[in-house]
Amino acid sequence: MKVDDLLKFDANGLIVAVVQHAETGQVLMVGYMNQESLAITMRDRKACFWSRSRRKLWLKGETSGNFLRVQEIRTDCDADALVLKCYPDGPTCHTNETSCFYRLIDFEGTVTLSGDGVAKE
Amino acid sequence: MKVDDLLKFDANGLIVAVVQHAETGQVLMVGYMNQESLAITMRDRKACFWSRSRRKLWLKGETSGNFLRVQEIRTDCDADALVLKCYPDGPTCHTNETSCFYRLIDFEGTVTLSGDGVAKE
Repeated sequence: MKVDDLLKFDANGLIVAVVQHAETGQVLMVGYMNQESLAITMRDRKACFWSRSRRKLWLKGETSGNFLRVQEIRTDCDADALVLKCYPDGPTCHTNETSCFYRLIDFEGTVTLSGDGVAKE
Repeated sequence: MKVDDLLKFDANGLIVAVVQHAETGQVLMVGYMNQESLAITMRDRKACFWSRSRRKLWLKGETSGNFLRVQEIRTDCDADALVLKCYPDGPTCHTNETSCFYRLIDFEGTVTLSGDGVAKE
């Protein structure tokens, strides 16, 4: 089966994409792709997203140089989500944290910083 | 900071939640939570989602018995996505695959099964 016949993009033409470090498994970020950014990702093997805030294609690393080199792309049973296993060229988060998920939420709802100690609130 | 002051739910009142195996790091599924399902998740330490198709709360495992026991909850720099590190009681996917992400997409766009070999197309 071909990917274009399978994937279900949402009403905005987007699909959620989870980026995971290819070796450590750490979830680095979650972004959104449209059909074009996915095609670019597959062609160049660097993760390219659709920026919902800037409403444009966003080649991750185009400014920072911290590209996400894609090793593997997976989709799920519903074909409405992607997982990309990547080797990051540098910190993934714009804060310079390794991962965007540097905030821990405890079971009482308190949020604390729990990353590399780079990001500040 | 408290979680209720930080998280950004979308126009439908939802936030995307990535479920990752607490030990192996395998991404098991992606679901959506509303404020209530997140509160239930935090209270019971079992992942509870909002089913977009059935439009109701969905305690993962309520039918199958395969609960996702939550060890850790994280959010990202934008506070619009969650990662849940969980111990699954059994296969996460309704197909009985360990992970819903049992489909591999190669760089030419061909989709193949690449999980436990349980799911069929």
